[in-house]
Amino acid sequence: MTAPPVLGTLESSLYARDLDAAEAFYAGTLGLGVVMRQPGRHVFFRAGASILLIFNPVATAEGPQPDSRLPVPGHGATGPGHYCFSVAREEMDLWRTHLEAADVAIEADFLWPNGARSIYVRDPAGNSVELAEPALWA
Amino acid sequence: MTAPPVLGTLESSLYARDLDAAEAFYAGTLGLGVVMRQPGRHVFFRAGASILLIFNPVATAEGPQPDSRLPVPGHGATGPGHYCFSVAREEMDLWRTHLEAADVAIEADFLWPNGARSIYVRDPAGNSVELAEPALWA
Repeated sequence: MTAPPVLGTLESSLYARDLDAAEAFYAGTLGLGVVMRQPGRHVFFRAGASILLIFNPVATAEGPQPDSRLPVPGHGATGPGHYCFSVAREEMDLWRTHLEAADVAIEADFLWPNGARSIYVRDPAGNSVELAEPALWA
Repeated sequence: MTAPPVLGTLESSLYARDLDAAEAFYAGTLGLGVVMRQPGRHVFFRAGASILLIFNPVATAEGPQPDSRLPVPGHGATGPGHYCFSVAREEMDLWRTHLEAADVAIEADFLWPNGARSIYVRDPAGNSVELAEPALWA
């Protein structure tokens, strides 16, 4: 049986125990809009048509609580994850300037063999956050 | 300084030590196209305009090797992560039938308060994989 189609990525996840620091980085420094926040458990951000979920793994690992209305399965990873934002080629220089002005260390900034540029930083939890041109995977 | 815009999600990551099992699930069962594969290190899949990266955290945690041409930063998480595919509302029933026919256990299948439906399964590594309507975050 052939699988039905998927449209794309609706949600990606990273984990952080300090959600306030995560929000300061993703909303404050990177300028994303917060779409939902549950103190101590999660904070979610809009990234174009999809959502970047930041969870406190201590709170999400157990899965649905007896008093939960919704049976949302548990999950929760530790150690640095990886996520990449799509950024227009003509905005990459401006992004580097913006990150440096915000005292975010640039861990790497290079061109892939196909010519697409990637910039890598760390979020406060140590996750590897990349900004890259859509042409990387065109 | 206002941050430059992001276009959306270009890459999301999950981790799995058994990449063959991951490929059998994401390509074989879910029908995604493989866009890149490095045995023992990673296998990448296309999901619409973005890419789902599956990494073996044992191989990626160390970061760039001395012989690497590209200084790709290290990362690597352990424990179950979470990722959600965007699936058209009219395909959700067909997805459930397809998953059951492939002997993939349905961990949850419910409607959120806004009426959007989510189906949750596990990949072979234990990651929580969701299929949900775009209306969940509209």
